[in-house]
Amino acid sequence: MNVDGKNYRTIWFKSDDSDVVCVIDQLLLPHQFVVEEINSFTKMVAAIKDMKVRGAGLIGAAAGYGMYLAAVKASKTKDFEKEFINMAYILKNTRPTAVNLAWAVDRQFKDISSAETIDEKLKIACKTAINIADEDVACCRQIGLNGVKLIEEISRNKNGETVNILTHCNAGWLAFVDYGSATSPIYEAFHRGIKVHVWVDETRPRNQGANLTAWELLNHGVPHTIIVDNTAGHLMQHGLIDLVITGADRVTNSGDAANKIGTYLKALAAKDNNVPFYIALPSSTFDWAISDGLKEIPIEQRNADEIKYIQGLSNGEITKVLITPLNSPARNFGFDVTPSRLITGFITERGICKSDRSSILKLYPENK
Amino acid sequence: MNVDGKNYRTIWFKSDDSDVVCVIDQLLLPHQFVVEEINSFTKMVAAIKDMKVRGAGLIGAAAGYGMYLAAVKASKTKDFEKEFINMAYILKNTRPTAVNLAWAVDRQFKDISSAETIDEKLKIACKTAINIADEDVACCRQIGLNGVKLIEEISRNKNGETVNILTHCNAGWLAFVDYGSATSPIYEAFHRGIKVHVWVDETRPRNQGANLTAWELLNHGVPHTIIVDNTAGHLMQHGLIDLVITGADRVTNSGDAANKIGTYLKALAAKDNNVPFYIALPSSTFDWAISDGLKEIPIEQRNADEIKYIQGLSNGEITKVLITPLNSPARNFGFDVTPSRLITGFITERGICKSDRSSILKLYPENK
Repeated sequence: MNVDGKNYRTIWFKSDDSDVVCVIDQLLLPHQFVVEEINSFTKMVAAIKDMKVRGAGLIGAAAGYGMYLAAVKASKTKDFEKEFINMAYILKNTRPTAVNLAWAVDRQFKDISSAETIDEKLKIACKTAINIADEDVACCRQIGLNGVKLIEEISRNKNGETVNILTHCNAGWLAFVDYGSATSPIYEAFHRGIKVHVWVDETRPRNQGANLTAWELLNHGVPHTIIVDNTAGHLMQHGLIDLVITGADRVTNSGDAANKIGTYLKALAAKDNNVPFYIALPSSTFDWAISDGLKEIPIEQRNADEIKYIQGLSNGEITKVLITPLNSPARNFGFDVTPSRLITGFITERGICKSDRSSILKLYPENK
Repeated sequence: MNVDGKNYRTIWFKSDDSDVVCVIDQLLLPHQFVVEEINSFTKMVAAIKDMKVRGAGLIGAAAGYGMYLAAVKASKTKDFEKEFINMAYILKNTRPTAVNLAWAVDRQFKDISSAETIDEKLKIACKTAINIADEDVACCRQIGLNGVKLIEEISRNKNGETVNILTHCNAGWLAFVDYGSATSPIYEAFHRGIKVHVWVDETRPRNQGANLTAWELLNHGVPHTIIVDNTAGHLMQHGLIDLVITGADRVTNSGDAANKIGTYLKALAAKDNNVPFYIALPSSTFDWAISDGLKEIPIEQRNADEIKYIQGLSNGEITKVLITPLNSPARNFGFDVTPSRLITGFITERGICKSDRSSILKLYPENK
């Protein structure tokens, strides 16, 4: 997507013959747009750990590139195998709950194991890193092509009037390599000239909506308005939201969806006001082993300081301020689970399906 | 309620024979506790306008004291009546939508009109200011005595285990003269030795929960935890909330309640999880003239900067930071309407009633 009129991905090789990987430092958004050049395995580990790069798809891609940088580093040592395995282990532990990270590490491992020389291993690791990123892009693009039909239909029903879409958190291109999941149908609609407007939940406590989603929509030129997380119900009561699209962190085989805390509340409001509520996700987000999201998905509790302090811009400087009484405790639940009964359907790269088990399995017959 | 172990109201005369009114500067909370001495009508107008004092009950009381200061000022001019009327007009226009403000101004007007001498008028204005404040205290105290029964019952059903109560925004003693509305049953339960714990919604965008409710509970010693506004649904799904009590800004004769934006979302979650949802309010909050809250209560839209900027403490200084892209628009709806079907009941100084029209009218037969 575009930044200052120039097309970007969230991660890329600086040039075809370089071992330098470029990423956007997302910790500085929306206030500063800084491309960080990562020229070593250690720096990639730090970038993932410090959450300069974040989001399911992007973490997977970063792990792919990270494993290439690991191979480069291992190739300069006496024991490639030992060093490479060691770094794979380190990488996997940067964000232990990130499924895509472990998956990308394992895939790199498998791919290069077939090669016999170090040179060949390096070539394969490089190719695999690029493939993982390209596949993420293709998958997100397809989610957009499938999901745009929903927006087109609403636009038709409104005789071309603006379609108002609510999204929560950031399931945008910044969370993937390009396009995003929840945002991909929106970008596609925008490119097709359909009038769209996005209500962006600021998404406390980490404010990914205000920091990231608003920033990417602004830079790409998509009309949008930031609201606080308390607002969506009121907007729906007054017909100001036509469609909700969010991402998801994990979806059970029965269609319960874990996503950023607060998603459940928006889904309740959508149900109460007959607003369609869709979740856009790559198929890899389904967890086929579990059924009851409320009982089986563990909810991460994060540091209370993410609630008590907030980062913003003051006199041109990124500044952290305390926004609660210093001595009041806070609790920070990262996600909640939206029961499938509140979800209209899922938008995946394979197509759109309703949120019940049999509809999901019709799209994914191999998981029956 | 207590601050640093000392009992305070939110507004009081500095001494019995003084024309100085003391208030807590709520704009500096929770970071600095500053008692501001208001020795002129002009300063009181500024305090109300700048929202150093806010909250239905406190605005009413401040208007009462403000009218006394107006009388003092008018008494030093040549034309008491003209000056006094002029100041009443100015005071009413500081917060045009605050019902209690207009009510207190009118009451002062009526009370002093019976007096013949300026001295007598001053005495009456002083007495009325004190009366308005005292009546607010008595009313809130009674709300607590009525509402505590709900908490006692839950406590009994839980065999004395901690009762977890969610509140949204600040309907605490800071919004009134003492006790508060939503917090009054909680303070009463706390004083009776019932184990209570309050989940405090931070309440974006003005963060009255984190800034005010948490501060007052902390200072009074009531166990509490701050959460972001996205969290309550998750807590209810997991049995971590036994009861919701919020305040209200306006309630229709059929029980629809306008309150701080986001209240509707919490009420939806309460309904979905069978958690009792109560609104605590003085009877003056009922608007007997209207029935359909969604259609008839206008929702104030406030400045977008309340969303885009936030105030906090950085290096000991109160600092404002930008927390969105500078050029992204934001919209700031101040309130939403919770339909009566989602409200379990109302806690008023007259007693508790269900949220349907006939139950409300049983408690208020004079409005039939």
